[in-house]
Amino acid sequence: MGFVRVKDNVLIIGFGLLGTSLAMALKERNDFRVLGHTRRREIIEWAVEKEIIESESLLELNQLLAKADIVVLALPIPATIEFLKNHADNLRKSCVITDIGSTKKSFMEAGAKYLQKIGVAYVGSHPMAGTEKSGPFNAFSTLYNNADVFLCSDDFSRDHEAVKKVASMWESISCNCVRISADKHDKLVAKTSHVAHILASALTVSVLDYGDKSDNFHGCASGFRDTSRTASSDPVMWREIVELNKSAVLEALDKFEFEYGKFRRAIENNDFDSFEREFAHGKTLRSEWLEYLKNKGIKNG
Amino acid sequence: MGFVRVKDNVLIIGFGLLGTSLAMALKERNDFRVLGHTRRREIIEWAVEKEIIESESLLELNQLLAKADIVVLALPIPATIEFLKNHADNLRKSCVITDIGSTKKSFMEAGAKYLQKIGVAYVGSHPMAGTEKSGPFNAFSTLYNNADVFLCSDDFSRDHEAVKKVASMWESISCNCVRISADKHDKLVAKTSHVAHILASALTVSVLDYGDKSDNFHGCASGFRDTSRTASSDPVMWREIVELNKSAVLEALDKFEFEYGKFRRAIENNDFDSFEREFAHGKTLRSEWLEYLKNKGIKNG
Repeated sequence: MGFVRVKDNVLIIGFGLLGTSLAMALKERNDFRVLGHTRRREIIEWAVEKEIIESESLLELNQLLAKADIVVLALPIPATIEFLKNHADNLRKSCVITDIGSTKKSFMEAGAKYLQKIGVAYVGSHPMAGTEKSGPFNAFSTLYNNADVFLCSDDFSRDHEAVKKVASMWESISCNCVRISADKHDKLVAKTSHVAHILASALTVSVLDYGDKSDNFHGCASGFRDTSRTASSDPVMWREIVELNKSAVLEALDKFEFEYGKFRRAIENNDFDSFEREFAHGKTLRSEWLEYLKNKGIKNG
Repeated sequence: MGFVRVKDNVLIIGFGLLGTSLAMALKERNDFRVLGHTRRREIIEWAVEKEIIESESLLELNQLLAKADIVVLALPIPATIEFLKNHADNLRKSCVITDIGSTKKSFMEAGAKYLQKIGVAYVGSHPMAGTEKSGPFNAFSTLYNNADVFLCSDDFSRDHEAVKKVASMWESISCNCVRISADKHDKLVAKTSHVAHILASALTVSVLDYGDKSDNFHGCASGFRDTSRTASSDPVMWREIVELNKSAVLEALDKFEFEYGKFRRAIENNDFDSFEREFAHGKTLRSEWLEYLKNKGIKNG
């Protein structure tokens, strides 16, 4: 006589690109039951019909919260904080809340503020996955494949089953969890992600907003396409991220400007040996990173 | 009774990524006979065996030059100029010389210097296609599909059959030829391509050369991968390009710095409305370019 393992319910709130892709991935792996909620009811109806989420997702939010073992907030940053403020009282004590946001300090602070007093654990997640596109109809089930996911815990959740529970959800869809402090996380992604978005955007304007449009279009090839790709991301989302992570972003911009300055000065001073050395240094560093990706089984760029 | 059209011979000198991919593409379309030459004899043997080029490519260079209707110099910039200097006397008067280089003024000058006196036409080509990889074994026949190719002519070749001949070669492999002056070309690609390579390289160093290596590796995802891709290009080639195009590159860097400065100041001044507006402006400009690519039938990024 065997036992049937009862699957935990993951409730995803928010059906943009990241929330919908997560629902698709979890559904495919089938280690969790997947419920979903968003204010746009037609999206939930679409997701139920596509069998991305269970049909009970059509219930009211409070009824869904009462069933959830893990709640994933896949919302814009202000909406996430608003959600914690408004719905803390409807959460089950045994559930764990997480998110998918690009900064972590603000989330952890909101978690501490609204959840600790009621004894609900908050674990911040940041899966290093995404595209420049938005919305449920750009979602795909393999978005998170092999991605690193940063996990942040606070005093309450640190040694709690909560971290394991959230990690098990990400691991079930082939992610690799990395524990990190919220402060360290925010500094890290300022340089690995936020600055790159700002550069892509500034480059795009400096290329396409000067001179003859038709010439510019002819002159942009795959190099520009890739370097500028993240400039097509959501401006509101990136405003929120940079606003919340201002000091770390400015510090990372300083680092970039320092390295950029070496290239610029080498050109101005006709010191092309230095230019070549700097360029070769970047190539070597990037090769090491590509090697790391390869060892992880990720197709490189 | 019909006539058999005699195909023109294209002789490709240099079998790196671009030369080899061009040979593959021309061979597939079969509108031209493809001959090849490079100092590394084993590469020519490999290309003959793979049927990328005709077996007579195993002949001596001077014998090949005597057969060529179009010579494509797919060499590093200094080697191209060296080639023109050393081999001008062996060219047929009726042949046309072109190249695939990323700057055009220096090539046109070399063409004028070494070829005009012997009455051979030089037409500069710059196909807007490539990858960050190098060498014949990374080549593929679809590299040039739908690419724009800039064509530069000088006083001698301007109204000459030569331009038509070179254009017909590119058009035979689905490229779109755009005539432009060498000066305008070099200014244009400084901003659409050269600056992007410098930014990618400076970003890569500023991300991967600071802090804990393992954290950096975890923190770099697909956004960094794409923004930094061209940092993996050949440092020697980029040194040569930037060196030859110094003043246009510095001018393009000024434009970038001006736009970048707006982002930086918006963050410093807590003016996130401006930040969002700038970011949205970049997104709109890039969408227009993506729309142009779509209309051309190019898969966008």
